[in-house]
Parts: sequence; C-alpha cells; structure tokens
Amino acid sequence: MIPRARVERLHSDPAIMLDDALAFSRTHADAQLADLCDLLRIPSISTLPAHEADMHRAANWLVGHLRRIGLTGAKLIPTAGAPVAYGEWLDAGPQAPTLLVYGHYDVQPVDPVEEWNTPPFEPTVLGDRLYCRGASDDKGQVIAVLAAVEAYLQTSGRLPLNLKVLLEGEEEISSPNMAVLLRRHRQRLAADAVLICDQAMLGPNLPLIEYGLRGNCYLEIEVTGPASDLHSGTYGGVVDNPFNVLVRILARLQDGETRRILIPGFYDRVLALEPAERKRLAQLPITDELAQQLTGAPQPAGEEGYTLAERMSVRPTFDIHGIGGGFTGPGRKTVIPARASAKISMRLVPDQQPQEIADLAEDFIRAITPPTVRVTVHRLGFSRPAVVDFKGPAFAAADSAYERAFGVRPLYARSGGSLPIVPEFQDVLAAPVVMMGFGLPDDNIHAPNEWLALSNFYRGVETIIHYLTLFR
Amino acid sequence: MIPRARVERLHSDPAIMLDDALAFSRTHADAQLADLCDLLRIPSISTLPAHEADMHRAANWLVGHLRRIGLTGAKLIPTAGAPVAYGEWLDAGPQAPTLLVYGHYDVQPVDPVEEWNTPPFEPTVLGDRLYCRGASDDKGQVIAVLAAVEAYLQTSGRLPLNLKVLLEGEEEISSPNMAVLLRRHRQRLAADAVLICDQAMLGPNLPLIEYGLRGNCYLEIEVTGPASDLHSGTYGGVVDNPFNVLVRILARLQDGETRRILIPGFYDRVLALEPAERKRLAQLPITDELAQQLTGAPQPAGEEGYTLAERMSVRPTFDIHGIGGGFTGPGRKTVIPARASAKISMRLVPDQQPQEIADLAEDFIRAITPPTVRVTVHRLGFSRPAVVDFKGPAFAAADSAYERAFGVRPLYARSGGSLPIVPEFQDVLAAPVVMMGFGLPDDNIHAPNEWLALSNFYRGVETIIHYLTLFR
Repeated sequence: MIPRARVERLHSDPAIMLDDALAFSRTHADAQLADLCDLLRIPSISTLPAHEADMHRAANWLVGHLRRIGLTGAKLIPTAGAPVAYGEWLDAGPQAPTLLVYGHYDVQPVDPVEEWNTPPFEPTVLGDRLYCRGASDDKGQVIAVLAAVEAYLQTSGRLPLNLKVLLEGEEEISSPNMAVLLRRHRQRLAADAVLICDQAMLGPNLPLIEYGLRGNCYLEIEVTGPASDLHSGTYGGVVDNPFNVLVRILARLQDGETRRILIPGFYDRVLALEPAERKRLAQLPITDELAQQLTGAPQPAGEEGYTLAERMSVRPTFDIHGIGGGFTGPGRKTVIPARASAKISMRLVPDQQPQEIADLAEDFIRAITPPTVRVTVHRLGFSRPAVVDFKGPAFAAADSAYERAFGVRPLYARSGGSLPIVPEFQDVLAAPVVMMGFGLPDDNIHAPNEWLALSNFYRGVETIIHYLTLFR
Repeated sequence: MIPRARVERLHSDPAIMLDDALAFSRTHADAQLADLCDLLRIPSISTLPAHEADMHRAANWLVGHLRRIGLTGAKLIPTAGAPVAYGEWLDAGPQAPTLLVYGHYDVQPVDPVEEWNTPPFEPTVLGDRLYCRGASDDKGQVIAVLAAVEAYLQTSGRLPLNLKVLLEGEEEISSPNMAVLLRRHRQRLAADAVLICDQAMLGPNLPLIEYGLRGNCYLEIEVTGPASDLHSGTYGGVVDNPFNVLVRILARLQDGETRRILIPGFYDRVLALEPAERKRLAQLPITDELAQQLTGAPQPAGEEGYTLAERMSVRPTFDIHGIGGGFTGPGRKTVIPARASAKISMRLVPDQQPQEIADLAEDFIRAITPPTVRVTVHRLGFSRPAVVDFKGPAFAAADSAYERAFGVRPLYARSGGSLPIVPEFQDVLAAPVVMMGFGLPDDNIHAPNEWLALSNFYRGVETIIHYLTLFR
C-alpha cells in the first residue's frame, strides 16, 4: 500500500493542471509500479472456479485503490458472477464531458505453467519488461489509466472532466453479466464516450486506435461412443473411436488449402470490405516478415485472397484450442476412449451473429456425424463483432494524446480480438467507444510469459493524462 | 503372506497327482485369492517413470512367491528396464516335456482415475467380480497358473512336466528388453511349448484358444507452429494453428466412409484371408448385438467389406488414443497453441512389419504437412503380428484341459491384441506358443474398473492343473 501524497494546490487552470499531473506522474513512477504489482499478485483467473475467492480479493483491492486515488463512491457492484469495482468523480460541472473508463481485472489461466520462466503471479522486472499474468491484459493498462487520474486528483484536487470507472471481472469469459448490469445502471453509467485501454500497439513506437472488434463463437464439440474406455486390441475394428470421428468432423469445418470455413451459410452475413478500408489496411506496416518475427512460425498462413492485415482483423477465423479425452501422459496407452471433445472458436466480423453461427455449426456438425457415435455441441461463450465510427471529439482527443506522449500520430485499425462489452456499450449508452492501448503484439497475452513494456506503461500514464485534458 | 501347507505325500502316479492337485486347489481358494490381492496392491505401471520402485516391489514379490510355491532357482533377471521374475522345476525327467510359462506383472495406467468406482489398486470383491487394475491383465491369470503349479508341488512334491516360469514387467510397453533377454538365455529357456495366459474368453462359458495376434505400430505425431502460445484474437488468421493442421493430417490417415487406412502401401503386405479361416471366423458367436452389448456404442463400425469377427482380429486398424497441447480445462481459453500432438496406433496383421509401416506413415504425414508448421513423428513402440500353427500336443492338451474344466470344447480364433513377445518366442525358441486365458470381453482391461470373474479365476486354476498333466 503506497501512502498517497497530500493535495497541495487546488486550482482549475487546465494548462497548470496538466503540467502538474505530468510532473506528479514522473516523480511517482515507482509508486505506480508498486500499485500494479500488488494487483498482479492476486491470481484472479475468472474461468477457473477454484479462483473465486481471488476474484473477490482483486475486486476489493480495486475498490480500495479507487478510493485511495481520490474517486468518490468507490464500491463493489455485485453481479451473478464476479463483482464489478466502480468509482466516479463528477464535480467537473455540466459543461465538461463525462468519460466512462472500462477495464477488467480478471486474467487468463496460466497453463502450460511449465513454460513460464518466472512464477506467473510474481511480478518480475527484467530490463524494460514486467513479466506477470495480467501485466498487459489488462491490469497494467487499468493501473496506467488510474495513475493518470490520481496524478490530477493528487495535484489539483480535481479532474478536467467528469469520470466514471467500471472494472469488471469476467471479460476473459465473455462478460456474461455485463449486458444486464449496463441496462440496470444505464442512468448512472451514462457518458459522452467510453474509454477502453485493453489493446496492443502495432509496435514499440506505433500507437494504435482501434475502431472495431471481431466477435467470437466459442463451442465445445463432444463425441461419445462406447460406454467406457476400451482396449484397442480387443475392440479395434469393432466400434468407431470417438477421436477418429472427432478429427474427421473438425477437418471438415475448414478447408486445408484455402482456410475457408466450410460451415454452410457461415459467410452469408459477412459485409464486403469497403475499398476505403481495404486501402487503409494496406497502409498498415504489417508484413509477412513482421508476422514471422512476432510469432516464430515457419511462415504466415490464412484465408486465401486476403492480405495479412485483412486476415487478422476484418475476416473471420476458425481455431481449435484443445482436444480432451483419451491418454496424453508419458509413454503409451492403447485405449479407445469413451469420449473425445474439442474446444473451438470462430472469430466473427460484422454482421455475423454468434448465436446464428452456433446454430449453423451445430446443424452442420450433426449432419456430418455418423450414427456410430453421439455428438453434443456445448455453447461456451458468445461475443458480437463491432465497428465504431471514429469521427468526433473522443477520437480526436485520443489521436492528439498519443501524438503528445509518443511523438507520432496513431494508426487506425480494427482489432482481431473480441470485447463483448463494446457492442453492449454501443447499444445501451449510445456513446462512442474509444479503444487505445499500450500492449505490444508479442507480449504473450493469454500465453506463458506475459509481459508489459514498462516504458509503455509510463507513456500510457502520460497519454491518458493528456487525454483527460484534451477530451472536451 | 499365506503359510504354505507341508507336502504330505510324495508319489508320481499321474491320476493321483491330478486328483490331489484339484482337491488342494479347491480347499485353498481363499489363499489363492489372498496371494492375488497382495500382488494387485502394488501399482506396477510400467509406462510411468514414477512407478519404477513399484516395478521392483512387484518383481521381488513374485520371486518370493515362486520360491514359496516350491519352484527352484527363483530369482530376478535384470534387464535394461524392469526386471524379470524367473523360477523353474526341472525334475520331471528327460521323457517329460518342458513347458515355459510366460506372463507379465506390469499394468496399464489408471486414468481417467475419476471414473473408477473403487480405488484402482485396492482389490475389491463385488459378487463374482474382483475389481482392480491388473485383475484380468495379467496378474490374475499369472497367479492362477502359479496356483495350479503350487497345487501339485504342495501335494505330490513334484510336477507332471518340467516347468520354467518367466514373468516380465514391460509387456504393456511392448517388451522392449525381452528380445535381447530371450536370445541371451536361449539355452536356459528352451522348451517344447510356451504357455501364455493373458487373454479373454469369448464369453462366460466360451473358452478360447488364440492362435494369432495382431502387431502394433504406436506413433506420436507432433505439430509445432508458433514459437509460443498465441492469442487467437490477435493472431487468428495470421498463422496456421497446429491443432487445425493436426486434425487435417489425422483425418487423412483413414477414410471416414470405408474406414480404410489411407497411408500409401499400408495394405501391401496384408495376407489375403484363407477361405478356411474366413469360414472358421464366420462360425464364431460374434454378432453386432453382442458387440453393442459389450461396448455400449450406438452401433458397431469398422472396415467396409469385412465381418465383425474379421475386423476385430485379422484386419488392421487405426486408432487415435489422445491429443495433447492447448487448453482442455474447464471454461474457455482462446489460445493458438505452439504445439499439438496425437498418440496413434495401428494394429497390424501378417505380414505387415511395424518398422516399415512407421516409415510409410511418416513419409505420408510429411508429404501432407503444409510448410506453415513443422511435423515430427515419434516412434513409441512396435509389436509384430503372429500366427501359430495350432496342431500338435501342446494345443491338444489345451483343448482337453478347457473341456475338462469348463465342460465345453474351446473355440479357436486369432486375437485382436498384440503380444510382441510371441513372435520372439517363435523365432528364438522355435516352440509353439499356446495362448489361453480366463478374462472376459467386457472386463475393462486398459480401462477404468478392470475386473476378473472369480469363477473364471478358480476354473482357470483347474484348467491349468489339467493342462500340466495332459501335455505329454
């Protein structure tokens, strides 16, 4: 717990406020990092029931932090799942705009844990890198925004605008409770813009404004055959092995040459690419060489007929995440397993609807499953795609804030990732959603050895300090 | 440890010896079962390095047991892996035949352990069933044979024939050290026949003599793509997902309609089915209804153009046993894993050679793997197929022994399973290999809840008592 500086001056001259906030943030870098490390040590993995208590610890820590940095009304908002940490500061007056900051405190699981070079929940600084699960996604970015807020409140005792902060704990499981919460608290959460810092830049000095997201349709395909595991000597040739059937089903969902998804109707609602967007994407510094360097894969691959920049953001994809059942230990076991199951997800683009895609997928999977086994399609999570109109003051402020902090104008692109809350914000608050971010493309989010560039963390704080003044 | 009865009479009249042995075995059923339970409690899982000490415990227990029942020269024979337990009794004279008994004390892993209804290594009797890993495969059958030997030695002080007992600890990992051991001890192990009790009957009162085995070629296919796990939002559409590629490779190894294996050259050495064998197989009481009842699968399935009896014994198969990598925990994780791997095996029939099949498989897998990933084919174990000529006294004795103990003549079939030691016995000892057995088709060997019918255990002891007298 870092003791907070006393507020020394109370004033409202924007230029002085900005200078003071920037000066404060530079002299309090160590305290900002210490705050982040406190939060990072809490293993708030939302998808694993064993971490339920950690979710509450993280939410409570955040409520305390919102209070410490000077927000009012800091409190937990309960949901049917992990609670939301909320705080606000609404004394900037009716002329000033209101900004709603959204972030999340939950993190991804850490397996394969043996591939981590440092303990996943022990923040470890190596050079400019802070290694820890959640360092980039999204605790580091949440703390950067809050450090910017703190810098104003601890120097001038006020903010240049009205602020609401909403930090949820279920982003990594597709925010199942946020749609209800947003609707229930529609009045309280009303804002002129929503700011989300949960993204990566395109490179170390290539800040990025994201004006769209892919959706996601996450399914588990479960194939069951024999009532219990069988010996493949005795029963090989007698019954269909659920794994043999499952891989045939999976192989029929995507063409191996074109990488097109073969579920009938899958592309029906995909909007054609506008020439202007195609041109914008072509100008991004995204090359095969960069992709290879970032991923370490032998060579890039993806849907035929589209550029890398298109494939990674405005085209849908199909990925298998894991296949369970049977024997995967060391050595050999000659088993025909009773069941085999695959976790898969499809990234979606406007105007695909996850529910409809799940229906199409399930119909197709049922149609190609032989009667020798049974198949069940479990729906594990949906997220809608989104596109944001990036004209208007909330985006202009983001553009300028990046330029002041990084010295370069930001690029514009649609994200390949998903944030189910974004289309909800669009629907419920009718406010533009500005997506900024200070991660990097190779920072291993959702993978072992996640890290955040400390230089980006500190420049992120500066960027948001500028943003809070620039958004008028 | 069961105290052994003192030998009361020493004589050599075959009929009296037989009667005494049968009587002894009937009055010592509890002691036989207690011996078996002692051995079953040792979790001698050969494929898991963590159980190395258990392998030695089991081998030492067996050496002690061989000594207790009256064999001479009981000792451990070390190998490069798990030791062999050996004992012999060679005082029946040069006119009497010599029988080599082979069995194994190692067992399969117990996962998925949560599907066991009783602790896997705590022998549990429920009705006529003894549940425990190894109850049927092969500890129960080993102890049945030794109980028959004991019955003679403890009553008449002698056996009707010369006996050698060889119990290994690496059968479940394809006996990697037995070929060397057999060649090194060729003289000491010389015999007129080899008896193996490691099989199942066709049904509760359908004893079976097996005169052939399938071979096995066990491989692991490993596909690696990105250098580390990637987020499927950021990188979906950028690189090939190793799982997506792996399922396409696996799906191309077997035709989904005909279930034919598609590796070029795979069937080249498969011998055509002789009309006599086809006829013999057609007479076995193996029906689709029985297969469904035994497996619980919605319906049987296998290679087009062959009957169930043919598919399960004289035709090759392809099975996937497990697929590792990625995320299979509860909930969701949107990962493109750095690697994905599949354990597969192919059951082989004469004259397929495992090494050659592995070469063909590896060539084909390499040819169909795209340059966007790397593929490695690991060779995890080979076992050659075998057929035994079942004419001659060693088989005639088995036929009669079954009839006397079970009241019915045995059926004849080739096993669908593999015992790599059998072709080695044929090559090195030039002796017929007689495969009998007292398991049942639904006794869950290699699966959770393995069990042995106690009635079969006791009738197995009787069968072997008869066999030892009948084999002349």
